[in-house]
Amino acid sequence: MKDMATPKLSAKELETLLGPEFPGMFDPDGGYSIEKVWFGGSRIRKHYNPRSLRPGGTISGGTLMKLADFAPYVAILASIGWVPLAVTTNLSISFLKKPAQRDLIAEARMIKFGKRLAVAQVSIRSDGEDQLAAHATATYSIPSSEVK
Amino acid sequence: MKDMATPKLSAKELETLLGPEFPGMFDPDGGYSIEKVWFGGSRIRKHYNPRSLRPGGTISGGTLMKLADFAPYVAILASIGWVPLAVTTNLSISFLKKPAQRDLIAEARMIKFGKRLAVAQVSIRSDGEDQLAAHATATYSIPSSEVK
Amino acid sequence: MKDMATPKLSAKELETLLGPEFPGMFDPDGGYSIEKVWFGGSRIRKHYNPRSLRPGGTISGGTLMKLADFAPYVAILASIGWVPLAVTTNLSISFLKKPAQRDLIAEARMIKFGKRLAVAQVSIRSDGEDQLAAHATATYSIPSSEVK
Amino acid sequence: MKDMATPKLSAKELETLLGPEFPGMFDPDGGYSIEKVWFGGSRIRKHYNPRSLRPGGTISGGTLMKLADFAPYVAILASIGWVPLAVTTNLSISFLKKPAQRDLIAEARMIKFGKRLAVAQVSIRSDGEDQLAAHATATYSIPSSEVK
Repeated sequence: MKDMATPKLSAKELETLLGPEFPGMFDPDGGYSIEKVWFGGSRIRKHYNPRSLRPGGTISGGTLMKLADFAPYVAILASIGWVPLAVTTNLSISFLKKPAQRDLIAEARMIKFGKRLAVAQVSIRSDGEDQLAAHATATYSIPSSEVK
Repeated sequence: MKDMATPKLSAKELETLLGPEFPGMFDPDGGYSIEKVWFGGSRIRKHYNPRSLRPGGTISGGTLMKLADFAPYVAILASIGWVPLAVTTNLSISFLKKPAQRDLIAEARMIKFGKRLAVAQVSIRSDGEDQLAAHATATYSIPSSEVK
Repeated sequence: MKDMATPKLSAKELETLLGPEFPGMFDPDGGYSIEKVWFGGSRIRKHYNPRSLRPGGTISGGTLMKLADFAPYVAILASIGWVPLAVTTNLSISFLKKPAQRDLIAEARMIKFGKRLAVAQVSIRSDGEDQLAAHATATYSIPSSEVK
Repeated sequence: MKDMATPKLSAKELETLLGPEFPGMFDPDGGYSIEKVWFGGSRIRKHYNPRSLRPGGTISGGTLMKLADFAPYVAILASIGWVPLAVTTNLSISFLKKPAQRDLIAEARMIKFGKRLAVAQVSIRSDGEDQLAAHATATYSIPSSEVK
């Protein structure tokens, strides 16, 4: 149980490993920050960027969906180690409230860690708000050969 | 029934109206083209851009999700007219096959046009392929005041 | 805020109102019990019934899906009052762990209460277990004429 | 390609194999009929039963969800052979139109047949109608040991 609570990779290590794979991903200007990881979860900040706006002055659904997909990916890598080829098989997102023109905070929580499939729940809020902007459930396929 | 078959806005008109709302969206270098619209549907091309790649040399899930969200949005605008504040309430996507490093083609087909909700099915393929790269279902809320 | 915390209908009142609409639903032999309701949530017990089994000795997906649909319906009625014509527009469920041959407990938590749409998250466990058997997100359309 | 077009099990064989696993499933009074199977698909009839009604005089969501889950299960068994322990990992359904008090017809079409995962699209209509009553996407995990 102790082991389960310890992530295999820290937020810092993940940013170092992921940076070259996803150029620009951690730019302070509109990119992401991995704020925290733990066994089975992650908290990711998406820095506000006016280019993400859509008609109505709200942040685009595409921006929310990318964040909803990235947060569990980070949680999986933090929890089981470097398996960059883990792929999303399914993502279902509900858009609940138009996000303000501010940073977004996503919290991913793994609700299943199987040998082949991992499933996460993701809550997305505007920074400083209680109400959810979006809620997603995402499933990932873990390449068996990659898990050590 | 004749009326129903005629879209209210053509592909050309839509690109002209949407361009200023979504800067860069129709750039030939990595942006979209509205290839065709009809009452209840649309076909959208996403031009290949190496910046969309993720580990494994495949196009990112985020790119596919944005396309899965955009194609029905275009189909709705084409079918019922200029309601830019229509918003996605739910999107569920299955990733079926890693897309090649090529353009993507999305076909949206509306399966419900209610007064308040519209629902679409979206098929995404790599250009020239038969097999689906992804399949999505998306629901949109139509602002009642906007519909003429 | 005080008002928001008070449900409009109690568990007892709901069983009395729903019983005639759904004959057999609250049979102690395989039916449901509304264990608890609060503003924005509900806890429902599904009594074990061997007829719900499927190959592999596990409870059928259909049983879990009905429960995932019923728990938010009860939470909505408890929270906003008697709107029996509220209808599910979308339900997405992940099956996480084969449930044991025991009662199931579903907890619904509303994550959006809009004028037209309500969205809930549902967690389903075998009675006495920590791990989730299933997790669902469901969206309901609230008939505007019905809300008092 | 010829082989791929031939189902491994016929509709008749499937009813014979599934009958003992799911008692009552093929009762003419409210049960299912497997109308047709082919490689990668199935057509299932759900016989109308007044016990499936819910407030508003429409067929319950639970009935539609069970049918949406069963049709791809049949399509998988027909296509790859007797793998009764194939399990649904995810199902997402949109309810589009209240079904009439009539039989329901579900058509499942597999959109992915991977080694470990199979994904299907399901269209459900009231018998004799064009418009969809519901549309679902479902993912199944295929137990590797079972596939011959």
